Amino acid sequence: MSIPDEKIFPHATGLAAKTVEKHQDPQELVFYAGWFCPFVQRTWIALEERGIPYQYKEVNPYKKEKHFLDINPKGLVPAIEYQGKALYESLILCEFLEEAYPSYNPKLLPSDPYTRAYVRIWLDHISKSIVPAFFRLIQAQEAEKQEAALEEFNKALATLAAKVKVPYFLGEEFSLVDVAIAPWVVRDYIAAEHRGYRREAVGSGWKEYAEQLEKRESVVKTQSDKEHYAEIYGRYLRDEAQSEAAKATRAGKAIP
Amino acid sequence: MSIPDEKIFPHATGLAAKTVEKHQDPQELVFYAGWFCPFVQRTWIALEERGIPYQYKEVNPYKKEKHFLDINPKGLVPAIEYQGKALYESLILCEFLEEAYPSYNPKLLPSDPYTRAYVRIWLDHISKSIVPAFFRLIQAQEAEKQEAALEEFNKALATLAAKVKVPYFLGEEFSLVDVAIAPWVVRDYIAAEHRGYRREAVGSGWKEYAEQLEKRESVVKTQSDKEHYAEIYGRYLRDEAQSEAAKATRAGKAIP
Ligand SMILES: N[C@@H](CCC(=O)N[C@@H](CS)C(=O)NCC(=O)O)C(=O)O
Ligand SMILES: N[C@@H](CCC(=O)N[C@@H](CS)C(=O)NCC(=O)O)C(=O)O
Repeated sequence: MSIPDEKIFPHATGLAAKTVEKHQDPQELVFYAGWFCPFVQRTWIALEERGIPYQYKEVNPYKKEKHFLDINPKGLVPAIEYQGKALYESLILCEFLEEAYPSYNPKLLPSDPYTRAYVRIWLDHISKSIVPAFFRLIQAQEAEKQEAALEEFNKALATLAAKVKVPYFLGEEFSLVDVAIAPWVVRDYIAAEHRGYRREAVGSGWKEYAEQLEKRESVVKTQSDKEHYAEIYGRYLRDEAQSEAAKATRAGKAIP
Repeated sequence: MSIPDEKIFPHATGLAAKTVEKHQDPQELVFYAGWFCPFVQRTWIALEERGIPYQYKEVNPYKKEKHFLDINPKGLVPAIEYQGKALYESLILCEFLEEAYPSYNPKLLPSDPYTRAYVRIWLDHISKSIVPAFFRLIQAQEAEKQEAALEEFNKALATLAAKVKVPYFLGEEFSLVDVAIAPWVVRDYIAAEHRGYRREAVGSGWKEYAEQLEKRESVVKTQSDKEHYAEIYGRYLRDEAQSEAAKATRAGKAIP
């Protein structure tokens, strides 16, 4: 059955297209990506930050093609094949890259056990509180629900904002927390244009932090032209999206 | 405000009480625990498996006492203080123990990067699919919802079951996947007695795997007497529980 989400624009554009172009040659690591996907962008940022060799392969995950389900039975991007073995889940992939490529620098997870656990606590907050609140916000239709979702989203961001040391989450060092939140920062204009979200309203220097993230080179070069995102997010804004994340949000379940 | 969840039995009983007794002396690592809590049991199993010295401190997390909120602002057990610094989240604590105590054996995360990522994929499945389904199942009141929740719970377990190598998830080696699921296996009799759950119905050797887990020494010695759990789970079964997990389940949000 054909769902509207299947008909997304077929490839990266703008600066992201240039990055894709540079990563066409076969490599030990194949990166299965969707140019539009914020979860993909996390892993992509990590690959670019660390200069790890990879081959980019565009996948339309909504099509659930057999060859891709063999790689990720959940049918979600990002996924990778590494020495012929498959892995998936954006943040698990980021940690995998730390461990499988220990000689590539910079690291995105610090070496001290306490700080690593601290970073993971905030990754958990992003996954459990910020990202679901973003989906609830853009999918909310009635004014009342939009208001509640905006408040929830602002609150979840403020909790993180209170912990940010400038310029990045841990200070000078760019880390996985920055990687994990950046794709939602560069997409927050959707909530701004349609749901009354304002970076300033979050407080605690959130606006300044967001501006640091959106100008980071790895973030800039993994982004496509704005017009192509509009088409996709239009379906969320009308609550018509049929992605697994959209359906889970509608059903009151955890995002897969 | 006093909520019924606050009035839980104040301390561990049975074999768990013996374990608590042995861990009263001050240590570099203080373990803030609630005897009844499945998330606590994960970290507790990891501590016992690896023979890490710790001081056990019983906390009633429903009271949200200031001293405990200073350790975990979310007010949830488990939490630890390590060299005076606080950390929380059961699985993050388990990974922290691997990294902060590298010379204690056995390890619960294998050393190969691919297998580590593979373990984390299944930890993610347990957190996102199995645990929320368990809460939905025991909190469901109408027959129809109970049936749907049971089907969902069985399906989430079957997906994991299909990957289990005997006797443990990875085979001979006891790992974090076993640690993460064991507390729900030893509590599944609640779903069996009240919601028609049957281990056999999961298939793929789930029953045999469950039996391996519930006889593991670290699992056995972190359990209290059954009668005291009944009181707590009674509130879930009547959907009266006021824990953060119960409220999130009711509201259709991710468990904190
Ligand atoms: N938890 C996953 C989420 C990945 C995800 O939801 N990806 C979306 C695209 S942004 C997808 O593949 N959707 C396909 C679908 O929903 O059917 C991760 O962090 O990697
Ligand atoms: N995600 C947390 C969950 C911990 C949790 O929910 N603990 C419960 C007890 S089982 C708690 O402290 N509840 C207090 C409350 O809900 O107010 C973890 O894995 O550590």
